[in-house]
Amino acid sequence: MKMVRFGEIGSDRPGILDDQGAIRDLSGIIDDIAGAVLLPKGLARLASTDINALPKAGRATRLGACIGQVGKLIGIGLNYSDHAAEVGRQAPAFPEFFLKATSSISGPADLIRLPRGSEHTDWEAELGVIIGEPGNYISEADALDHVAGYCTAGDISDRKYQAESGASHGKSFDTFGPLGPWLVTKDEVPDPHNLSVTCDVDGRRYQNGNTRDLIFRLPAAISFISRYFTLQTGDVIITGTPGGVGKGQKPSPIYLHKGQKIRIEIGTLGVQEHEIA
Amino acid sequence: MKMVRFGEIGSDRPGILDDQGAIRDLSGIIDDIAGAVLLPKGLARLASTDINALPKAGRATRLGACIGQVGKLIGIGLNYSDHAAEVGRQAPAFPEFFLKATSSISGPADLIRLPRGSEHTDWEAELGVIIGEPGNYISEADALDHVAGYCTAGDISDRKYQAESGASHGKSFDTFGPLGPWLVTKDEVPDPHNLSVTCDVDGRRYQNGNTRDLIFRLPAAISFISRYFTLQTGDVIITGTPGGVGKGQKPSPIYLHKGQKIRIEIGTLGVQEHEIA
Repeated sequence: MKMVRFGEIGSDRPGILDDQGAIRDLSGIIDDIAGAVLLPKGLARLASTDINALPKAGRATRLGACIGQVGKLIGIGLNYSDHAAEVGRQAPAFPEFFLKATSSISGPADLIRLPRGSEHTDWEAELGVIIGEPGNYISEADALDHVAGYCTAGDISDRKYQAESGASHGKSFDTFGPLGPWLVTKDEVPDPHNLSVTCDVDGRRYQNGNTRDLIFRLPAAISFISRYFTLQTGDVIITGTPGGVGKGQKPSPIYLHKGQKIRIEIGTLGVQEHEIA
Repeated sequence: MKMVRFGEIGSDRPGILDDQGAIRDLSGIIDDIAGAVLLPKGLARLASTDINALPKAGRATRLGACIGQVGKLIGIGLNYSDHAAEVGRQAPAFPEFFLKATSSISGPADLIRLPRGSEHTDWEAELGVIIGEPGNYISEADALDHVAGYCTAGDISDRKYQAESGASHGKSFDTFGPLGPWLVTKDEVPDPHNLSVTCDVDGRRYQNGNTRDLIFRLPAAISFISRYFTLQTGDVIITGTPGGVGKGQKPSPIYLHKGQKIRIEIGTLGVQEHEIA
């Protein structure tokens, strides 16, 4: 299943793609793409629904983030060797995770708004992992049992604030965490470790990686993070970005400016397109 | 008003204290102490309710965290000079904030569970501030207009993980963020900068501060943090801890062990009592 949230900013409604890729309105059945809907029982209930009998959403509708009520948005830093190298860091010995404010979450075609005065805002394309069954001290062997699905994710970053105060600071600005277009359930992603990871800026391809090159694959990352706290239903882990970010450009870094457009695509999980504002 | 959440862990219900200090059940009126309830209109509606006509909760009921559906739990580090000195740090030039996982939130008498193998878990008593009206780029002059109320808060910390990986890591373990007993609305707290801040361990007073000694008072802290992201309704800021934590004890640090009891009290905002498990 490919689940979406659609409508005006702040009043997203739950939806699902039908066989033709049109959005069907789920708001008669569930309140949101969130919480218990993402547990195996909730997903099974949706899977048994006659999607084609649901009302269609208008074609021109805005898509919101593909998941609501996210409790934790967890990022992994330096999880591809080429990215660690381009920012002058060694590949880490364990998953370097950070908390990103959930208020940064936005839709897959929403504006990305530069912080006031920002001259160091950078792109990062990432695979997003949505937690279904909660757990802590999860073993690597069990880790994928805790995944409800996957999505395309951006981890937009202001490098100045990140360098000065840490990842949470540089990566938590409003609109810096676009998720979607779709929450693709796990059954439709045969191998999460073989998905292309690309980011284009104004039509030029800067990032061109693949999740096969993740230093810490999903079982290792989920297991490690779950030693620090319970991963709850609806938590999202964004798994790190490959080489090709603006900070790593030679001879000198390139950062985003008003009016530019970025395009993020992760394998079969759908495309994000954002204008910088 | 003093609002509470009560019931079994995971199924907290909204409540409010009546004139005699007994809990009245609000679940016929609101779903939770959260979201729009905390906006001025929501609080005004509650204030006009005949509390004494509501059903009473049982006396023996467990209290949960005094607020639900917290979007962001934001901590401020080193916000009292004596605490900065005892941990060997200089008083910061600006509010050093961090994100603490919302899954750490627990009730005012819940067990505090040590992480597996932890030998460096420490106490911190703090004033908690609950955001009502959302905003970003909030001016200092307007900052208190964005506050719905206050609560007693604990910022339990594993110093080893904190030193190795950062504040988010050391302070985010489950049960490390007790909030409550009450969400005390702003009108009942004439001066948030004159509240005692104490923590006792097994009956011995270790922390004995006052919010008058905050380095960054609430207007400065709220204004600064709101430059990084929108402060949303129901976000909680825990404002830092005074001197007297375990790490600062001489001749050598003291940390919490299973079976110990801690007691945290902030001015007139109520008492927390936790057993370490």
